[in-house]
Amino acid sequence: MRPRFYAPGLDPSAERVDLPDEEAEHLVRVLRLGVGAVVDVFDGRGALWRAEVVAAGKKSAAIRPIERGIPAREIGVRVTLVMSVLKADKMDDVVRDAVMMGVSAIQPVVSERAEIRMATLVKSGRVARWQRIAVSSAKQCGRAIVPVIHEALPVDQYWTQQTGAVRVMCVEPSAVPGQVASVHGVPKPGAADVIVGPEGGWTVPEVAAARSSGVILMFLGGRTLRADAVPIVALTALLTTWSELT
Amino acid sequence: MRPRFYAPGLDPSAERVDLPDEEAEHLVRVLRLGVGAVVDVFDGRGALWRAEVVAAGKKSAAIRPIERGIPAREIGVRVTLVMSVLKADKMDDVVRDAVMMGVSAIQPVVSERAEIRMATLVKSGRVARWQRIAVSSAKQCGRAIVPVIHEALPVDQYWTQQTGAVRVMCVEPSAVPGQVASVHGVPKPGAADVIVGPEGGWTVPEVAAARSSGVILMFLGGRTLRADAVPIVALTALLTTWSELT
Repeated sequence: MRPRFYAPGLDPSAERVDLPDEEAEHLVRVLRLGVGAVVDVFDGRGALWRAEVVAAGKKSAAIRPIERGIPAREIGVRVTLVMSVLKADKMDDVVRDAVMMGVSAIQPVVSERAEIRMATLVKSGRVARWQRIAVSSAKQCGRAIVPVIHEALPVDQYWTQQTGAVRVMCVEPSAVPGQVASVHGVPKPGAADVIVGPEGGWTVPEVAAARSSGVILMFLGGRTLRADAVPIVALTALLTTWSELT
Repeated sequence: MRPRFYAPGLDPSAERVDLPDEEAEHLVRVLRLGVGAVVDVFDGRGALWRAEVVAAGKKSAAIRPIERGIPAREIGVRVTLVMSVLKADKMDDVVRDAVMMGVSAIQPVVSERAEIRMATLVKSGRVARWQRIAVSSAKQCGRAIVPVIHEALPVDQYWTQQTGAVRVMCVEPSAVPGQVASVHGVPKPGAADVIVGPEGGWTVPEVAAARSSGVILMFLGGRTLRADAVPIVALTALLTTWSELT
């Protein structure tokens, strides 16, 4: 496989497209490629091109698109992972996995039992970090789309948003009174928000708020899943049910 | 949730069941529990009991079973994950995830592009390490069954075994000529071996050997999955298809 670089400024008709600093550094210093090398570039919005390196400085590089390529197929449902923020490395893994499974966006939320407060999250620059992880995961899995990482929201604020997407929230049945769907009970939508709680789970008022805003509560089998494994399991199960893992 | 301990010698009618050293140490030194504490114990073969601590020394502990408990439901297909050994921490994660997803056993294999040779594997004590991880994952996910980690095998030897299980091997379609099933094409068996390759994938002769021993080749969607994520995705997709994630 040719090395792949993220070029958000990609213009197929341009004679020269500069790479972002990080990508240029990777090209020049890590992979030690120079002028004339042939690479793949993607714009993060769905376009993938074979390209030639036309400039390689100490910390800068530019390419010229040659021929359109075929990126990994995108799934047919616009899925947003709505994730109550986990501890640092766990959340990094969740972002990486969700991008690999094909989500369109990630909406971090802060719920009652989340490991971090809103104020800390805003100061920490973690959204920018997750966006970098999304770029790197898109590269690895062959997607030419880089999912958007939205700014974090308090979960109460998320419930009141009108997105038009079907909302599915993963719960442990033992923790929730009343009816809970299994994955087969979630009909295929055009767009879906898949909502996953923190290590400590959802509080009773959070489940009630979700229910009263029309969220489908879903469980994922009889065993207790680790919080950081729930997104990949939920996404795989839903994509399988929706015949999108083909 | 009550703290849970692994007691392979569990006898429901005994007045005193000694815990293995590691478990006793966890009870006494980490959780600082003493005589009279009520805990859960499981035998690794399906039995879970509420029990009372009846002895707690410096590095030993014993319990007396009180009442039978209800463990996490087991899935209705006996699944063995046949996994080409990955680098250390990745393989640890794979064992942890596979136990959480409900496998009955894990068969480590060494394929052409595996990260380790058979001789190193035998000397390294890694099977014993994976068995400990299986105990700890069973505890976390609520199972009373501890899956068996078999001794590692060269993959050629695995092909020639007659297990009676349906064999499903995960492949990247681009790497494999001929017909490949999607997950929906794998009928529900009584027992299944789910076969996953190493970071570098399978070699052409390995795929040919698999095919000629009747293995179903399966792919998991259009994106390239990380080798250590393939087991959890494959198991989730198959269990969803077989209506076992309910």
